[in-house]
Amino acid sequence: MPVWFMRQAGRSFAEYRRLRDKHSMLELCRTPELAAEVTLQPVRRLGVDAAILFSDIVVPLAPMGVDVEIKEGVGPLIANPVRSERDVDKLRPLDPPTDVPYVLEAVKLLVGELDVPLIGFAGAPFTLASYMIEGRPSKDHARTKALMYSNPTVWHRLMDLLADAIVAYLRAQIEAGAAAVQLFDSWAGALDRDDYVAYVAPAVSRIFDGIQDLGAPRIYFGVTTGELLEAMAATGPDVIGVDWRVPLDAARGRLPGIPVQGNLDPAACLAPWDALEAKAVRVLERGGGRGHIFNLGHGVLPETDPATLARLVDLVHRWRPHAG
Amino acid sequence: MPVWFMRQAGRSFAEYRRLRDKHSMLELCRTPELAAEVTLQPVRRLGVDAAILFSDIVVPLAPMGVDVEIKEGVGPLIANPVRSERDVDKLRPLDPPTDVPYVLEAVKLLVGELDVPLIGFAGAPFTLASYMIEGRPSKDHARTKALMYSNPTVWHRLMDLLADAIVAYLRAQIEAGAAAVQLFDSWAGALDRDDYVAYVAPAVSRIFDGIQDLGAPRIYFGVTTGELLEAMAATGPDVIGVDWRVPLDAARGRLPGIPVQGNLDPAACLAPWDALEAKAVRVLERGGGRGHIFNLGHGVLPETDPATLARLVDLVHRWRPHAG
Repeated sequence: MPVWFMRQAGRSFAEYRRLRDKHSMLELCRTPELAAEVTLQPVRRLGVDAAILFSDIVVPLAPMGVDVEIKEGVGPLIANPVRSERDVDKLRPLDPPTDVPYVLEAVKLLVGELDVPLIGFAGAPFTLASYMIEGRPSKDHARTKALMYSNPTVWHRLMDLLADAIVAYLRAQIEAGAAAVQLFDSWAGALDRDDYVAYVAPAVSRIFDGIQDLGAPRIYFGVTTGELLEAMAATGPDVIGVDWRVPLDAARGRLPGIPVQGNLDPAACLAPWDALEAKAVRVLERGGGRGHIFNLGHGVLPETDPATLARLVDLVHRWRPHAG
Repeated sequence: MPVWFMRQAGRSFAEYRRLRDKHSMLELCRTPELAAEVTLQPVRRLGVDAAILFSDIVVPLAPMGVDVEIKEGVGPLIANPVRSERDVDKLRPLDPPTDVPYVLEAVKLLVGELDVPLIGFAGAPFTLASYMIEGRPSKDHARTKALMYSNPTVWHRLMDLLADAIVAYLRAQIEAGAAAVQLFDSWAGALDRDDYVAYVAPAVSRIFDGIQDLGAPRIYFGVTTGELLEAMAATGPDVIGVDWRVPLDAARGRLPGIPVQGNLDPAACLAPWDALEAKAVRVLERGGGRGHIFNLGHGVLPETDPATLARLVDLVHRWRPHAG
């Protein structure tokens, strides 16, 4: 069974934390050699079957005119939040070769070094819009939803503008050598299904349509999206990443014929090995042994011991479905 | 259709904010006249069919030996987090008449004033344990789950100790005059179903069993619990509160025969009236017009205009299920 981990690159590695002592998160993302180095660390240490480009979903926003920084322990802070039609009109389209050359350079460096596929990635429109509108991470996305409900025209213009930027960004990553891409919709699960379908799904479909001709598998993931899985699948991805809250057999029941990725609770990696092993085997069994990429149901927690992840990779590689 | 709102008392009211300028949150909770006044504000202004006692889930923790304060904009902070068997052993049982007399006094004052039922409430064991172990609000509950996985004996002792305290607390509220109670399990939805069933459900059952003889309806609510609804219902409550993420007809399908409460997205109250009305009617229709208490799918957002809530109450009261 293939396996990789969301956020496999980063804070659980001492060598990453040493780099972060010297460089900000965005400096790492914008320096191809460093982004490549951080991307490689877990591939060397864990034996995973894919690398995921080390970056942050807000990286493409800065050249679009969003004044963003990442504050330690808080997340992205945006000095000029998008709250009106005028604010949306001021956003610039993204031209990856001139706007984010360092990302494409990191992809090229990695493709030369790796002997496993590289997964590129981007944030999804609702998730990016929430940061842009709230100006910071939000629990309730109140301003975001208020804009969505009160001014659907401006909302859809923002969604389309983000979708076009994400299409350009993912196409550039694939053309630079990424073998697959994951669209992270971290916050989509804050929406009920009606709103997801009305206000968000069209932009997500536009993204998957816009990169389909390149043939790279497209993975779509969000948290607390148990009720949205069918609607997310209808946007056209090749693989759906599943939150740990949804038993994987239940997810497969809602997504007939679509490969799934996931979905061990990241906190299980803090458990004693026996408890972790039992939970991981249950995920594998519920995954059914086909059309399943093993992963966590969200990102690796910073407290995680990389040795535990390596042991988990080994378990997944050795696991075989029950005969009969 | 009956209607009340979680967090209907509080920050959306100017008269509440004026009280908060003079008193801390915990002062309000510990002063019967003020807690009663805040509880009454929405009943007077909104026309809701029930009052919910104004308090905070951490109120009973202090007399148990937890050094807790509520920090504005952050939430509960605990100076002596519970991290070991020794820490659990130091916790004292709760004796409501001596430990939280002000809560029971507020209930008695309210029962004398109200012409609608008063709903009492308590936090549920997992949710309280997460605050006690993390020492502050947590997104991933990593320390909590780590303790749960690594030391199930201590974990279950903590769960049972909290369950006993909550039974005493809810019994005292009912005996003082509360007509129903709601158990808030805000964080239970962070658990996958296996873990909820193994580590949390037994303590919740113990609570519902422990107050059943008093005959007051017992409501159980948690957020992002779509996959847990059946397991939550199996703990024995009379009504299940449903998160806004789960379409209410889907929730009813998972909970045959059990009355449900909910579940409009609180952010919908920030929408223009037409959009809000359409969403509220959809909730009513999906609720099916029987065995349904209308509510939001989580607490009222502070930005909400009370006039909007009053109009929503009126809509719910006038709504009738389609004939045939």
